[in-house]
Amino acid sequence: MPETEHRWVIDLELTPPSLGDNTADADRLVAGLQKQLGSPNVSLDRTALLPLPDLLRKNNYRVRCIVCRDRGAWKVIFATGPADDRPIAGLAVDLGTSRVVLRLVGLADGRTLAESAFDNPQLNVGADILARIHYADTTDGLEHLQKLIVDGLNRHMALLCRQADITQEQIHLAAIAGNTAMSHLLLGTNPHWMIREPYIPAVNRPGLTRASDLGLNIHPGGRVLVFPNIGSYFGGDLIAGILYSDLHRRENTAILVDVGTNAEVVLGNHNWLMACAGAAGPALEGGVTKMGMMAGPGVIDRIDIDPKTHQFQVHTIENQKPIGICGSGLIDLAAQMFLAGMIDLRGKLVPGRCDGRYQEKDGLGYLVVIAADRSGTGKDLTIGQADLDSLTRSKAAMFTILETITTTVGVAMQDLSKFYVAGTFGSFIRPASAISIGMLPDLDIDRYKPLGNSSLGGATMALMSTDAVDEIDAIQERITYMELNVNQDFMNRFSAAKFFPHTDPSRFPSVQVWQE
Amino acid sequence: MPETEHRWVIDLELTPPSLGDNTADADRLVAGLQKQLGSPNVSLDRTALLPLPDLLRKNNYRVRCIVCRDRGAWKVIFATGPADDRPIAGLAVDLGTSRVVLRLVGLADGRTLAESAFDNPQLNVGADILARIHYADTTDGLEHLQKLIVDGLNRHMALLCRQADITQEQIHLAAIAGNTAMSHLLLGTNPHWMIREPYIPAVNRPGLTRASDLGLNIHPGGRVLVFPNIGSYFGGDLIAGILYSDLHRRENTAILVDVGTNAEVVLGNHNWLMACAGAAGPALEGGVTKMGMMAGPGVIDRIDIDPKTHQFQVHTIENQKPIGICGSGLIDLAAQMFLAGMIDLRGKLVPGRCDGRYQEKDGLGYLVVIAADRSGTGKDLTIGQADLDSLTRSKAAMFTILETITTTVGVAMQDLSKFYVAGTFGSFIRPASAISIGMLPDLDIDRYKPLGNSSLGGATMALMSTDAVDEIDAIQERITYMELNVNQDFMNRFSAAKFFPHTDPSRFPSVQVWQE
Repeated sequence: MPETEHRWVIDLELTPPSLGDNTADADRLVAGLQKQLGSPNVSLDRTALLPLPDLLRKNNYRVRCIVCRDRGAWKVIFATGPADDRPIAGLAVDLGTSRVVLRLVGLADGRTLAESAFDNPQLNVGADILARIHYADTTDGLEHLQKLIVDGLNRHMALLCRQADITQEQIHLAAIAGNTAMSHLLLGTNPHWMIREPYIPAVNRPGLTRASDLGLNIHPGGRVLVFPNIGSYFGGDLIAGILYSDLHRRENTAILVDVGTNAEVVLGNHNWLMACAGAAGPALEGGVTKMGMMAGPGVIDRIDIDPKTHQFQVHTIENQKPIGICGSGLIDLAAQMFLAGMIDLRGKLVPGRCDGRYQEKDGLGYLVVIAADRSGTGKDLTIGQADLDSLTRSKAAMFTILETITTTVGVAMQDLSKFYVAGTFGSFIRPASAISIGMLPDLDIDRYKPLGNSSLGGATMALMSTDAVDEIDAIQERITYMELNVNQDFMNRFSAAKFFPHTDPSRFPSVQVWQE
Repeated sequence: MPETEHRWVIDLELTPPSLGDNTADADRLVAGLQKQLGSPNVSLDRTALLPLPDLLRKNNYRVRCIVCRDRGAWKVIFATGPADDRPIAGLAVDLGTSRVVLRLVGLADGRTLAESAFDNPQLNVGADILARIHYADTTDGLEHLQKLIVDGLNRHMALLCRQADITQEQIHLAAIAGNTAMSHLLLGTNPHWMIREPYIPAVNRPGLTRASDLGLNIHPGGRVLVFPNIGSYFGGDLIAGILYSDLHRRENTAILVDVGTNAEVVLGNHNWLMACAGAAGPALEGGVTKMGMMAGPGVIDRIDIDPKTHQFQVHTIENQKPIGICGSGLIDLAAQMFLAGMIDLRGKLVPGRCDGRYQEKDGLGYLVVIAADRSGTGKDLTIGQADLDSLTRSKAAMFTILETITTTVGVAMQDLSKFYVAGTFGSFIRPASAISIGMLPDLDIDRYKPLGNSSLGGATMALMSTDAVDEIDAIQERITYMELNVNQDFMNRFSAAKFFPHTDPSRFPSVQVWQE
């Protein structure tokens, strides 16, 4: 994180008025802030204005206030006495399509007060974002979706506040990072045109909105910062991720990848940022295999296969009996099977190397990962050839996207100083496994950095400093978004990447070593 | 009025989006406005954002929007189609302590749509502003006063809209000019400290407030511009007056006077502005004499006394039977009596010159202006020595204030290029009469300019151009407010001015001519 320059909370000591200096209370405060902030564009919200005269006189013209900045204009949104020791809080939100994560922080000191997460209540209306966008077009559909998410936020915010022993009125700022569609649904703006050519969002930079306009139950004068997007397919969650990763401030070119059904990539340094997004297919999220599922207790997140004995060593979340496999587990499985010779260069099962785990059904081969007697479901956990083919396509798409963006910019993958992997995926994935199957390039393992929830991290950073708002806008402005054209070049790269690890194994020297 | 530079209504034609230009709808509009307005600080209100996507597509990316500017930041507060031929209206308000005047104008063309006036409903709570300021300190008193005036505005706005055949939703902007206390009571800010040393208002520059925050029933996204003040005793009504008079743009020094119980004076030109305010007493508003009253049907507003026959020629408003006299009528009466020799240099009645109109009661002399049989009240309308003494003090105070401010700045009264007189008083007063009694300086009559309702005029100008907001702020900033110290100099000037027209008659050469 960069150093905090201006907190949202400012303490001021004003000169009391006199017959010779009869400036009004509000204008006295504004003048003090103009000096402190170095900007002439300062004004007061009504909520801050009304209590001001008594507040100033009670505290001998010492005042603590919360300021926010939007498009060059500063606004005082709250004022209190300097001795008011109730925490002034901000709420950071990772507004995911499936999962929403909240973090309560102190605006004055940046301390985390509490955290929680909940399933996006819009899941009941539509599991994926496309279904919700269509639903938004039905009568009152948009209002319903907006209400669902705002109600969910209010409900869980109340719990969070109880946990932190504060009231919701003590929250004055919310910073919310979500994909473009989720941001639209929160704002109540219709995402209708996002999914229709030429794929135009209603808004790229929503800036600061009054919390009361959205129905968010924080302080009546509170503001909501919704992170900007740069198009229908590159949302505020990624802008938050860039902010959090510091990619935009690095001298050496680095890359940030958010892996999912849609793979989003940002490449750049302190001079330029290039982004693209492309479909990688659901395999990387564990979404296609029969046993695939999101991370949770009993889900396999790591597998090792002994190269000599071919014994499977399976790790599950919370060490419970295995019930399924998540994206990172699947990549581990495929990588280990490949290194053990159980699948070949084309990603096809090699029955003779599978030690009796190989079976067939309706002419399709599959491998038993966990036998029924050791699984948590009482049934075999298996991976089929079709699952592997799907994974092969997904990993090839991921690699092709990486190759295309680096080639376009003229940066060799080997020259990437850092390779950030965002999200839960980034936290669980073992880079060596992703390299083994040729999904990610063969870089020194220590250049790979998991970012964790970078969307929440970026949202939290926005609460640390008023400068973050400008920084976010600057990031949004600097990004060049590259449309991925599925042309002959792309298809050639994709075909070459469908091998394990690649048709050109010299690009993956480490894999050759690991195979030995 | 200066030329209109930027209307509040802007018509734009945007380039439709394409695969190669996927800027979001809101950001496309913002970019268009940034170019048009020459400012990077443009954003959209939620009320303007929500309908935008459909609006743009229905109108092939041609859009009409209302923008407003506050502290350097532009906001789009409404957007509609270019073919929308419903008038977009603004409301100008002269927010008087006693009387409120409304004017509905078209924001796009500046045309006046309708006008009306009503008594300030706060009169029921307190006739004068001091009573209301005290009432504001009682339980719910401030809220009650705010509700009274806002309800009054809403009620009369509804009538006005019916008259102009528009809906209240078609009003997007209100510009309100009132004295500092009335502005506070409208905003709901407590004027408590205004009347207590060192006399500090809660706010000098309220800027733009959301109409919905004040409860004003115009368009939900509409804004209210409350004119700034420069202290408890120099309000937004006077800033509006300066804007309207153009004093701040004139090359030659001129003066603007608002005559009332409190006399407010602004002196200046395009380089500087100096202001002061002082108590002149209620006589000039017709507030002390038994027969004094505010202008209305049957009220004497003009009197001529034939210098030979001493016959009274009385003019009343709407030519009804006389029932009283207003401030300007009283000045006429005193001036004519003085010129006819009925009162002497000290303002004392000269019984022998009063042709039987002179009477006494309890040892106090008075003059019958209208005998009972010709009056509208069935009683004699009289003016007493005490009334005349009160007028003498008031006119002396007025002249002393004028002399003090001009002397302080070093401008000879004779060099004033224009002498603006604001308000109803300014419209009715005959400069020659005011000069005759030595209330106003002996300038060429044609330098005197009545301004009429300059508060309403200034408020209307604010609706004509977005630049007016900056101009208003610039006026407010440029004014140097001079405290009138009642020191020996002041008292000497005041004593000298208590003569008719002055102890130094050479300062009033015209009066000597008129007396002959």
